[in-house]
Amino acid sequence: MVTTMHRQLSTTGQGDVRDVTGQVTSALGESGLSKGAATVWVVGSTAAVTTIEFEPGAVSDFTRLFEQLAPRDAPYSHHERWGDDNGSSHVRAALLGPSLTVPFSDGQFLLGTWQQIVLIEFDTRPRTRRIVVQLIGE
Amino acid sequence: MVTTMHRQLSTTGQGDVRDVTGQVTSALGESGLSKGAATVWVVGSTAAVTTIEFEPGAVSDFTRLFEQLAPRDAPYSHHERWGDDNGSSHVRAALLGPSLTVPFSDGQFLLGTWQQIVLIEFDTRPRTRRIVVQLIGE
Amino acid sequence: MVTTMHRQLSTTGQGDVRDVTGQVTSALGESGLSKGAATVWVVGSTAAVTTIEFEPGAVSDFTRLFEQLAPRDAPYSHHERWGDDNGSSHVRAALLGPSLTVPFSDGQFLLGTWQQIVLIEFDTRPRTRRIVVQLIGE
Repeated sequence: MVTTMHRQLSTTGQGDVRDVTGQVTSALGESGLSKGAATVWVVGSTAAVTTIEFEPGAVSDFTRLFEQLAPRDAPYSHHERWGDDNGSSHVRAALLGPSLTVPFSDGQFLLGTWQQIVLIEFDTRPRTRRIVVQLIGE
Repeated sequence: MVTTMHRQLSTTGQGDVRDVTGQVTSALGESGLSKGAATVWVVGSTAAVTTIEFEPGAVSDFTRLFEQLAPRDAPYSHHERWGDDNGSSHVRAALLGPSLTVPFSDGQFLLGTWQQIVLIEFDTRPRTRRIVVQLIGE
Repeated sequence: MVTTMHRQLSTTGQGDVRDVTGQVTSALGESGLSKGAATVWVVGSTAAVTTIEFEPGAVSDFTRLFEQLAPRDAPYSHHERWGDDNGSSHVRAALLGPSLTVPFSDGQFLLGTWQQIVLIEFDTRPRTRRIVVQLIGE
């Protein structure tokens, strides 16, 4: 059985990291499925999903890594082309990826206690993000 | 229902990034499935898949990040072992990963307008790449 | 059909990379499935999974990259908060990710000859790791 759920949330722009474990878990509850895998997917090329211990220290350490890897104010070929200012966003999002597949069993995601599912906003401006939770299972 | 499709393409070596959205979409069309998830998988340990806005600027910004992270001409233990010259390829490919899972609904992938599925060639020589598109759904 | 298998292994701490291809392949064998996709998932926020050519040179090149990206002895906000010493572990694990989806066909994973599935331990102390192999297919 396949169920596709849509969630939406507003972000404040680059550096905004959101714990979406609650939204993804509510999608699993609504589906009525007990075992399978959920693909958590963010639509667009300037945001990404992963898991992290969602506490402000670890989250700021993580966003600092991306500023170091692809600084916001560095020169980007993407800027020259479009007059955009979000070259850092594209590079960061492509590296981290838009997709995370999380298994569930007995109606529960198999997450660790300190492991949350997060959306990372990399774009330089506030965005309304669409998250797809695609559940496949029984 | 599970359908496994194989696609093949020739790359020119390190730094070649290919938009494979068309090939992956044609595999979905042939499968006849309308909702589910596709795993896009590249066979081998020196290439990877992700999504990016496929325009030359963003793509060159992205490949430049990898040259900075794991420079082609740096010393690698992998070289000493095998006389290979593709230590940078292995490191980059393991970081980005060979697998991407993309949900689809109503027979369409849930991609953003400027979000394409790409194969990144990291090997130091031209390669013939096998891409597997594994579709699970209804 | 959905089958959830659990595997466990003990690691020696940060820098320990384990080839788990055998464990994942045995889970596929036990499932009796012939085609589909396996999600290989590590529970917790300080370890990750990917594929790499599992030879000591490439593996040490890969772990060196993470020491360069997020040095163990750098200052981390996570440390100030909890008195922990594993800020580097959280940052590295969130970057690489806890999940890998691998397609299989004719009862075989579609891996390359020199492409192994690995668990990367990023935590600063030895851990007992739980790996979930979630198989969906026919």
